Amino acid sequence: MTQDKSISATAFLMNGRDGPYSYAENSSYQRKAIEATQGMISKGLWRNLGCSVGPNTFIAIQNIIDGIKQKNKSQGHSSQIPEFQVFFNDQALNDFNKLFMSLPPNREYFASAVPGSFYSHLFPKASLHFVYSSSSIHWLSKVPKPVEDMNSPTFNKGRVHYGGDMESFLSARAEELVSGGLMALLVPTRKKGNLSTILLHHPFDVLGCCLMDMAKKGLLDEEKVDSFNLPLYIPTLEEFEEAMKCNEHFSIERFELLGLKSSGEIVPETLSMHPRATMEGRISEHFGSEILNELFDLFTKKAAELGICNSGNRFDAELFVLLKRK
Amino acid sequence: MTQDKSISATAFLMNGRDGPYSYAENSSYQRKAIEATQGMISKGLWRNLGCSVGPNTFIAIQNIIDGIKQKNKSQGHSSQIPEFQVFFNDQALNDFNKLFMSLPPNREYFASAVPGSFYSHLFPKASLHFVYSSSSIHWLSKVPKPVEDMNSPTFNKGRVHYGGDMESFLSARAEELVSGGLMALLVPTRKKGNLSTILLHHPFDVLGCCLMDMAKKGLLDEEKVDSFNLPLYIPTLEEFEEAMKCNEHFSIERFELLGLKSSGEIVPETLSMHPRATMEGRISEHFGSEILNELFDLFTKKAAELGICNSGNRFDAELFVLLKRK
Repeated sequence: MTQDKSISATAFLMNGRDGPYSYAENSSYQRKAIEATQGMISKGLWRNLGCSVGPNTFIAIQNIIDGIKQKNKSQGHSSQIPEFQVFFNDQALNDFNKLFMSLPPNREYFASAVPGSFYSHLFPKASLHFVYSSSSIHWLSKVPKPVEDMNSPTFNKGRVHYGGDMESFLSARAEELVSGGLMALLVPTRKKGNLSTILLHHPFDVLGCCLMDMAKKGLLDEEKVDSFNLPLYIPTLEEFEEAMKCNEHFSIERFELLGLKSSGEIVPETLSMHPRATMEGRISEHFGSEILNELFDLFTKKAAELGICNSGNRFDAELFVLLKRK
Repeated sequence: MTQDKSISATAFLMNGRDGPYSYAENSSYQRKAIEATQGMISKGLWRNLGCSVGPNTFIAIQNIIDGIKQKNKSQGHSSQIPEFQVFFNDQALNDFNKLFMSLPPNREYFASAVPGSFYSHLFPKASLHFVYSSSSIHWLSKVPKPVEDMNSPTFNKGRVHYGGDMESFLSARAEELVSGGLMALLVPTRKKGNLSTILLHHPFDVLGCCLMDMAKKGLLDEEKVDSFNLPLYIPTLEEFEEAMKCNEHFSIERFELLGLKSSGEIVPETLSMHPRATMEGRISEHFGSEILNELFDLFTKKAAELGICNSGNRFDAELFVLLKRK
């Protein structure tokens, strides 16, 4: 799954050590510093939700580092600012070359990239202090099997699969985070209710309608559209909360629905950029890249018709969750 | 500088931690384990010098890990085998996507990539246990300024620049390695003597002759050939030893000239693969990619004519150096 690094990269942050053999001591100090910045981190991440085509992850990382530095300064520990090492993770097929070329030149951390699925172990035990994942964990590890059977109760299976994936994600991170380490997640959620009604106005559903329209016009093979399944599940707030509470490794420090303050300003052209950025590779692979322009032109028109840019019609909302490793 | 990952990647190895807050203890244990494998590591790296187009770095990393595991087993500590985290480093322009796609699927370590020059700091302080660099540090940080002045005593300036680069390399690694950590280097060296005679049979010099031949035939602009300088310096054994002894951070544990046992078997076509793998990008950028095939055909012919594949005519030799952080 190739995703636009600017909006979906998952970052793992490890504070560097200040000297040989002093990890235990520093680790405890750094952990406290990170814990103390919880409020600022939450505020900082929130602040950046609007810039959906900007280098969100880099900005979020800088916010976290700024928070720690600010706290250190206010406590008179300016000289004790630790070094930071940041790991950017995505699937091995991601364009890491592009990521490396776009790293901020004046960054205050050592950057590295880790390829692989975040549903598996990616790091040694107890080696991370902070994990940040934005709009990523609604991507499932794979398309749930029953979805490929057209008569199956698809959505229910999707939910079951989501629960399993969340468990894998949380238990992998639980091993990798130090005790007291933090994990900040930004998770898209949807309102409770009948999924088929609710998803009518979800951008990915609109994309599905556009593909069907193109198939009806004979521009695409209808069977190909039927077999195009996204390994994607948008949970309700309640489902996500349940998955969080089931795990025994983390305590929930914050759980805030962020709302969509800027929704009123979104124009359909802007709205189409997100699905295009995240889906282009997958669509090209399945249908061929020649359909892309027509498909997203159609998407923009349909989004305007349905009024999905109007906040009153939107059924999704971003959730900010801060977890602490017990 | 884009280099073929299979022959020139530099790898940084950090043993993972076995549990929260136990770094100091484990670090000391793991360090001892690594130290105890010195002989095996040396043997393992040697063993792989022959396969010049194979994935050398991956094999070398596996050798190091095997050495540590074997030592642990022989001492009855099988259950204490630490986790390994390996960082592959190269310039930001390197093709890291290709590297990630070619990682051994059954690897016994967590892999990550770090972009940037190894003449600068790449990691937090005291965060590495083992550094391995094969046939990389003869690439300078840049073309020394005086080389661009055609009347300058070029080679001497090259040597001065090499000394400065080695100092940067060693002091950066000294900060990043834990006390007692090891650094294994494979370094190409040349015999002492008049450089202009000695380099006559060096593959990169043969490449220079081929470029001049093509310029004489009008296939290339002669001025372009003159301005094509490689940021490359092959030291003599003595020069390298001097650079090592100047530094105060490392003790020299091993210093072995490996010889070139397999030289007799090299055919010119094989010999041309190394310069092509490492130089293709740079040559394309300067002259255009259309000259590549003709250039390397010419190289193969000239290498055969000069008999540079015959071990008796070769002036270079690989040096294995094992350094320990004081």
